[in-house]
Amino acid sequence: MIERTEERHAEKMKKKQAAQNKIVAAKTVEKGLLIVHTGKGKGKTTAALGMVVRAIGHGQKVGVVQFVKGAMATGEKLVFDAFPDNVEFKPMGEGFTWDTQDRARDIAVAREAWEEVKRMIADPSYAMVLADELNIVLRYDYLPLNEVLEALRAKPAMTHVIVTGRNAPEALIEMADLVTEMTSIKHPFREQGVKAQAGIEF
Amino acid sequence: MIERTEERHAEKMKKKQAAQNKIVAAKTVEKGLLIVHTGKGKGKTTAALGMVVRAIGHGQKVGVVQFVKGAMATGEKLVFDAFPDNVEFKPMGEGFTWDTQDRARDIAVAREAWEEVKRMIADPSYAMVLADELNIVLRYDYLPLNEVLEALRAKPAMTHVIVTGRNAPEALIEMADLVTEMTSIKHPFREQGVKAQAGIEF
Repeated sequence: MIERTEERHAEKMKKKQAAQNKIVAAKTVEKGLLIVHTGKGKGKTTAALGMVVRAIGHGQKVGVVQFVKGAMATGEKLVFDAFPDNVEFKPMGEGFTWDTQDRARDIAVAREAWEEVKRMIADPSYAMVLADELNIVLRYDYLPLNEVLEALRAKPAMTHVIVTGRNAPEALIEMADLVTEMTSIKHPFREQGVKAQAGIEF
Repeated sequence: MIERTEERHAEKMKKKQAAQNKIVAAKTVEKGLLIVHTGKGKGKTTAALGMVVRAIGHGQKVGVVQFVKGAMATGEKLVFDAFPDNVEFKPMGEGFTWDTQDRARDIAVAREAWEEVKRMIADPSYAMVLADELNIVLRYDYLPLNEVLEALRAKPAMTHVIVTGRNAPEALIEMADLVTEMTSIKHPFREQGVKAQAGIEF
């Protein structure tokens, strides 16, 4: 009886493998992807950081610009700094709009960060560029959306560009190859009064 | 006119900051979280890897067990191996069920991986334990759900445990502190025939 189950399983999996092989064989395209992580749930930035880790591991050159995080000593900064030949890591933000309370300065900071992203995207030696929380800046109209879309449209064919942040503009989603929405099912901040903790939020 | 806009902005942000400060002040709890990343979208594993990076950066000890990935040289393995004092990284899978075609062996492999996770969770020196794709194994009934829930329930108070994989069991979601569903809005595999690429999928 058990033997029959095992046999049936092997048979079924052989068929599934054949189907899978067919699917994989049909996927032949290699291209740099425009990737968007949006939604209200957690995981937008961390999923991008995970991709950065993978790219580093494969010896690729990665540029990371953070539009909101700045002075704070994040875990990602400490790890990426250990790979200076692979990662150019630039936390260029000055915090949230309610911390800076200075719109003109926020706009200037966003502009400076965006110029870095533009430079990295235009340089084909970067295999991956992460514009972390760029959506936030676009949401506030701190950068002209058209200028951003234009730079993304002109990216080298093999460069992966990842844009994170809630409220991704429709036109960006439209243009992107891979879009994931992080949906919050349960969040301990709101529900249990748990504070931001090292390893989780920063 | 511009000056008025700037002033209004500063005023509005001052109020927002006060509100934010109140929210932050109300969040005083520090605790190890049971975190679940599920859903059909991309980013479940990468978001967990991002948390691992943050924890490593803060000098925490992290245990990572991968239930599906095995022999493949992933980017995450190469990076985490650079931090041998911080990360114990164990890719213990042997691939997908349709690759192994051996149910008894799949179950034995799942059991072995789970014993590693159990050991790490029970040891309070680990600040974070990632059980990558554990949900897949649970979905196939390769491990008794009750045994898994029991070990998670008994975890040290300050340990973060992250469980990834689509189709998270209801009882696990019930027990978790933080649950994010990754929803696929656009996926270049299906839509453009793009194959799995280094830095993105592995």
